[in-house]
Parts: sequence; structure tokens; C-alpha cells
Amino acid sequence: MENNTGIKLHDITRAILDDYEKGRDIDKLDTFAQPDQEVVTDILLKLINIIFPGFYRDKNYKSYNHDTRICVLIEDVYYNLRKQTSIALGYSDSLVSADNLALETRADEITAEFMQRIPAIRALVDTDLEATIQGDPAASSKEEIILCYPGLLASTTSRIAHELFLLNVPMIPRMMTEYAHSRTGIDIHPGATIGDYFFIDHGTGIVVGETAVIGSHVKIYQGVTIGALSTSGGQRLRGVRRHPTIGDNVTIYAGASILGGETVIGDGCVIGSNVFITESVSEKTRISSKTSEVSIRRR
Amino acid sequence: MENNTGIKLHDITRAILDDYEKGRDIDKLDTFAQPDQEVVTDILLKLINIIFPGFYRDKNYKSYNHDTRICVLIEDVYYNLRKQTSIALGYSDSLVSADNLALETRADEITAEFMQRIPAIRALVDTDLEATIQGDPAASSKEEIILCYPGLLASTTSRIAHELFLLNVPMIPRMMTEYAHSRTGIDIHPGATIGDYFFIDHGTGIVVGETAVIGSHVKIYQGVTIGALSTSGGQRLRGVRRHPTIGDNVTIYAGASILGGETVIGDGCVIGSNVFITESVSEKTRISSKTSEVSIRRR
Amino acid sequence: MENNTGIKLHDITRAILDDYEKGRDIDKLDTFAQPDQEVVTDILLKLINIIFPGFYRDKNYKSYNHDTRICVLIEDVYYNLRKQTSIALGYSDSLVSADNLALETRADEITAEFMQRIPAIRALVDTDLEATIQGDPAASSKEEIILCYPGLLASTTSRIAHELFLLNVPMIPRMMTEYAHSRTGIDIHPGATIGDYFFIDHGTGIVVGETAVIGSHVKIYQGVTIGALSTSGGQRLRGVRRHPTIGDNVTIYAGASILGGETVIGDGCVIGSNVFITESVSEKTRISSKTSEVSIRRR
Repeated sequence: MENNTGIKLHDITRAILDDYEKGRDIDKLDTFAQPDQEVVTDILLKLINIIFPGFYRDKNYKSYNHDTRICVLIEDVYYNLRKQTSIALGYSDSLVSADNLALETRADEITAEFMQRIPAIRALVDTDLEATIQGDPAASSKEEIILCYPGLLASTTSRIAHELFLLNVPMIPRMMTEYAHSRTGIDIHPGATIGDYFFIDHGTGIVVGETAVIGSHVKIYQGVTIGALSTSGGQRLRGVRRHPTIGDNVTIYAGASILGGETVIGDGCVIGSNVFITESVSEKTRISSKTSEVSIRRR
Repeated sequence: MENNTGIKLHDITRAILDDYEKGRDIDKLDTFAQPDQEVVTDILLKLINIIFPGFYRDKNYKSYNHDTRICVLIEDVYYNLRKQTSIALGYSDSLVSADNLALETRADEITAEFMQRIPAIRALVDTDLEATIQGDPAASSKEEIILCYPGLLASTTSRIAHELFLLNVPMIPRMMTEYAHSRTGIDIHPGATIGDYFFIDHGTGIVVGETAVIGSHVKIYQGVTIGALSTSGGQRLRGVRRHPTIGDNVTIYAGASILGGETVIGDGCVIGSNVFITESVSEKTRISSKTSEVSIRRR
Repeated sequence: MENNTGIKLHDITRAILDDYEKGRDIDKLDTFAQPDQEVVTDILLKLINIIFPGFYRDKNYKSYNHDTRICVLIEDVYYNLRKQTSIALGYSDSLVSADNLALETRADEITAEFMQRIPAIRALVDTDLEATIQGDPAASSKEEIILCYPGLLASTTSRIAHELFLLNVPMIPRMMTEYAHSRTGIDIHPGATIGDYFFIDHGTGIVVGETAVIGSHVKIYQGVTIGALSTSGGQRLRGVRRHPTIGDNVTIYAGASILGGETVIGDGCVIGSNVFITESVSEKTRISSKTSEVSIRRR
């Protein structure tokens, strides 16, 4: 069989290598020109470690001295994020003709600027943690929330990725939020602006679009979409505001959809399960689906 | 650039270390006082290995003798679970003033008690396996179900975590179910009580709350919520019954929501897709959404 | 404590080993007779690497010469897939009485046939990539889509798994799609037939059943089900057509359900969010839920 296999393998390999010569985008071979998902995930997890210094202990670090451990983590993130950012900036529309040195210099500025914002990110994450324990009767301690809750992982990741998005870093913010999406089922685009005391319960199936703006003290449950009305415009809509504005103190129950760039949900609203909204709602309104007519049969 | 980087890094690190001094819960540094997610996941996967002894072979074990392999697995789980449990018990309200020896002794008792229940857990899991092959025309063998089906992974994890929950172990049960949630999109709180022959199809987006009680021979599909009516009570509702009771032989199709601690779904009911229920339903009732009015336009 | 522990451990181990003697399917011990999830995942990831040769660089390969690297990858996939296929064929109804040599010979034929189809799979994947950038205003480059988008990972996996399904390989195709389901929340059965230019947006909660047939230029959003009407028939329905046919140029928005083996959605239809369809729809029809009546209360 093996001789035969050698011939088969040769033909298969030849056919695949020939297929790469067709000049389609799928055939591009510039591996080294892209950020590395594995490294970006490592950066994200180390940032989460820095944000919650008492958790997620990385066993690779030998040091038991807390400050030393954090210093090593920060330095590690700094060098890796700078390197990945300089690669990603190659995809930036405004830097398309920049040389390597210019990309590296800009990457260094961005990384320093981002890391100076870590205390501000921590302040926001602390409010999310507080909102979660206040909001969920099943939560028995803040430690349990930090160790177990997918909602806090997703919101923390969003807060990190959003800062990089604001600094115009291509790709890396989305790689971070897609890592969180994969682990939690919660899909928050890094462009979304989210106020403090944000609480996500359960979370699977949540979608928050790129241009959404969410106020303070907002709670959202599994399956909520804060999305676009239609995307049939495709790339022509790039950069256009197409996702809703959610006010402060709004609660959006499971499965509700709020769509459209001109849709504004006023402060203090409560949006019931499965409600489908494409128009603005004035403040302090409680909207719920009338129990839709059901057919009942005894067997 | 590097000298400059050294100064930047120093300032960034200083700012972050200072930020840890604010005394918020997010600033806690008691890493070693928490259960370890990696170890808990390892325990869970080894328990699943013990439950399905012919599957999920752990290649780290050199032994090809089956009994030896299982003995090593059991011993490994015993020591690690006892250690993690003794750490987790530090979060137990009733043991808050216990010393380390008391925690360790209690952890040993709990671990032994839990492991004596493994044959009972296996008996339940065997019924879930049977229900899955009976319920799914796409399943071609029980082996395929064990190797591939997220529903069985989630229900097996729930059965393990529920026993630890009944033994009042903090955190660890939830770490286990959140591991399964992350892998499957199925979010079953370890507090939920679930009868035999439980079948989950597809599963993504399912939520089953802490105080839910589910009977025998129940089938649930993707996106089903068995949840609370409102959680605006927050921590005041802790421990209160807030999730439904589901009878025997009930089928709940995709996207249906059944909410509230006083809601009882009688034996033999069939709940249609997307139905939203907040009141009790008497036995043998079939409820389906009347096809909601749609607007139809030809283009 | 330790002496006591030794006795407890002995009793626990004895009880579990005895429990394996009950002769239920859960007690089977034929570990080596099953495909290995870890190896199958490795094969899938290497195939994705071969499909996108400029991405997902596997750092285990020392070679920087592109052709050499791909040759090694192809050879690696060939040997491992042949081995896993020969194991999986043991579960094939038609080969149940075949000896090992017959299984290995058939596995070799199947593997060679499958790998000859890689260029055809790449041609389809290239259309999905094009459809994604056309369809999503948030996508800023094809590279971003390849590196980040769960929809493309799920559809690429489906295209690979579907070819193995067509070659009657048991289990392995489903192990591949369940890997993608776990990472993305998108559950596409390997039996589903999907035309070119397929675009999945967000994706969490999507279910596409085994006998579904989907045309060209179809877009589906998060939470869409293309499923069976009822599965109460269980194993009696095995092999029966029970999932819908979707025409060309159809868009199905978030949360819509289309059910039943006789349901045909005509070319050019647009199915709105949350619409629930169990009957055929003629071509170029736009169906949307009438905004269901809501109850509005000011607070």
C-alpha cells in the first residue's frame, strides 16, 4: 500500500500547491504580516490577570512576591502588545504607506497610551463586578463571579478591546472580543461604547454591534441583540451609525432585539423578553410582549 | 527607543501598583485562597473519564491495564478534589470561623461522600444516553453521542456538579457547570434538580436556573429558558424559589421560555417553539404559539 | 487521616469497578475502537491551515520554506486521517463484518478521494470569504475575517466535514462540526448541503439540520434554526428528509425558525427576525413578523 500512497500523496500535494497559484485572496501567503491569535489571546489573559491581581495566577511565573510578579506581567504585555500592534498597523488605512520604523514608533506610542488607561479600565470593571453581585441572587461572592461568570469575562474583555479600538488598532481588538465570544457566546463588537455598572446575566447569544452606545447601570440577559436594522447595504455602510443608543438604568430581558442607528431607548426603561423594537422609546417606559395568542390542546 | 520604554514601563507599572492600593474588592490579593479553575477542570474531565471508562482515554497514563488506570484516576480525583474543596469551604457561610484542620476534615468527608455517589451518577447518565439515542434521528450510535454531543457533556457535568452542590461545596460546582457552559453554550446552574432520561438537543442558549426542578423523561431544545420571572430583587431573593417545576415526560421546543418559581408544567405537556409561559399548565397540555401574524410582500 | 483515606479510597474504587460490570452501554471498555477527538481536532486545524496557507501558522513546523511546510502538513493529515477513518469505519453499517485489512484499504481510498477534493473545498471557502466582506459593514479586511470571524470557521469546517460525510465516514465529520459548534455556537450538521457564497453573521445559536439543503448566496444571522418540525419519531426518522430547502439569494434574519422536510423557501426571499415558518414560501417574498402587540406602561 505504501508505494501507492507515495504516488497518491505526490499528486494530491501537487494539486494543492497548484491551487495556491490562482491569485485569489485565499491564496495569500504573507503569514508573517498578520497578528498572531495565540499571542493576542496570551496578552488578553495577562491583562485580565493584571486587572484582577488576586486571581488567575499564572503558574509559569516562579515569583511569589506579588509586585515582582505584576512587574513581569506588565513588561511581558508591553513588549508583546507593541509587537502585535506594529504588525496590525500594517492594515491601517491611514498608515498604508508608512515604513516599518514609523509603524513601530506609532505602535510604541499606542501601547504606552493604552497601558496608562489600565487603572481607568479597572475602575469600570470594579463597577461591573458590583452590578453583578447586586443583580444576581445566585451569586454568592464576588470571588465566585470573578472565577466563574462569563458575563464579567465578556465585559472585561470589551473594556480592554474598546480602548485599543479607540486608539485605531486594527484587528487586535476584534481578535480579543472574538476570543471572549468563543468562550462565552457573548458577541460584543469592540467599537461598542458601554457605561459603568454593566451587568450581563447568562449571556449566551448576546450581540452588541459596532456603533451601539450603552449607558450606565444597564442589565442585559441571554439572547439580547442590540443590532443593525438591515445590513443589505454591506460595505457601503462602513463607519455609518447603525446600532441603537441605550440610556441609563435600562434593563433588557432575554431574547429582546433592539435595532437601528436612530433607535434610542430612554433612561429607566424596562424591555421585556423577546420584545422586538425598531423605534425609539421614551424614558421610564416598560414594554412587554402581550402574551402572544397560543393554541392549547389537551391530549 | 528602549531607554524611553524603560521610563514609560516604570511609570505604567507604578500607576498600576498604586491602583491596587485602593482597597476595593477588585484589589484583593489572596490568590491562594481560591479554588483553581485549571485544577477543577482537570477534576471534572477525569470524573467524566471515570463515568465513561471506555472513552476519553487520558494519554498521560502509561498503564494499559484498565483497572490500574481507573484506580490511578480515582486516587488523583480524590486528592485534588479534597484539596480544592478545603479551599472552597473557606467561602462557606457556616464554616467562616473554622480553622484549617476543620476545613480539611470536612473536605475529606465531603469528597468521600461525593465519590461514593459516582455509581448513582453513572446510572443517571446511562438513562440520559438512552434518551438521546431514542430522541435524535441523526444519532447513529451511542459512541457517537458520547464522543460528540454537547447535550450529554452538559447534562453529565450537571449531574456531577449537582451532587457537590447538595454537599454544600461553594464555587466548585459552578466552576464545573461554567466550564460546560463555555464548551456547549448550555447554562445549567448546579442547583437545578433534574430527573432521569434527560435529553438536550443542540443546546446552545439553554438556561436552567438554580432552583428549577425537572422531572423524568424531559426533552429540551436549543434556546430554552427555565428561568426567573424577574431578578430586580437581586440579593434579597437569594435562596428563594424562583424557577419553575417541570413534570415528567415534558417536551420543550426551541426558544420557549418558562419563568417563575410558582410555575408548574404538568406531566406529559408539550411546549411549542418560542412559547412564553409565566403561569402553570395542567398535565397533558400541548401549547403552541399561534403562528403570529406576518406581513408578506412580493418583491 | 491518611490511613483512613486509604480504606475509603479502596472501598470507593471497588464500588466503581463493580459498577462497570453491569453490562450497560455506558460500561463498554473498547477505548481503542473509537476515533480520538484530540487527533480529529488536530486534523481539522491542519486542514484549515492548508485551506488558508497564509494564516494560522503552526509553530511546531521548523521549515520557513512554504512548499515544504505544506507538504509536511498534507502528509501529516493524510496518515492521521487514514488511521482515524479506518477506526471510524468499524461503526459503518455496511462494513460491520469487514476485517481490519478491508477497513484499512477502504480508509486509504476514502482519504485519498477526500484530499483530492481540497481544491474544490478551497474554491467554495473563497466564495464564503467574498460573501462575508460584501455582507458585513463591520469587516475591514479579508484577513480580519479569516483571523476573527466565527462564521467563516464554522462554514469552512462544514465544507470539510460534509465531504467526509458524503464519503460515508462515520463519526469523524460530526466530531469536526461539534468542535466548531463548541468554539462558535454554530451547529451545522455535516449532512447539510450548502451552496457557494454562504455568509453567517454573528452566528451564536444557529442550528442547521442533517438533511437541510441551502442554495447559493444565502445569508443567515444568529439564532436561526433550519430544523425539523418534530423529532418525536426518534430513530424511526433516521435517514428521512426532515429539514427544509432554502433557495438561492435568501436572507434569514436573527432568530427566525424554518422547519420541516417539505418546507421550501423560494429564491430571493427575505425572512425577517423571529419569523416562524413551517410551510413553503414562494420566490421573492419578504416575510416579517407584524410587530407583535406590546403592552406599554410609563413608570
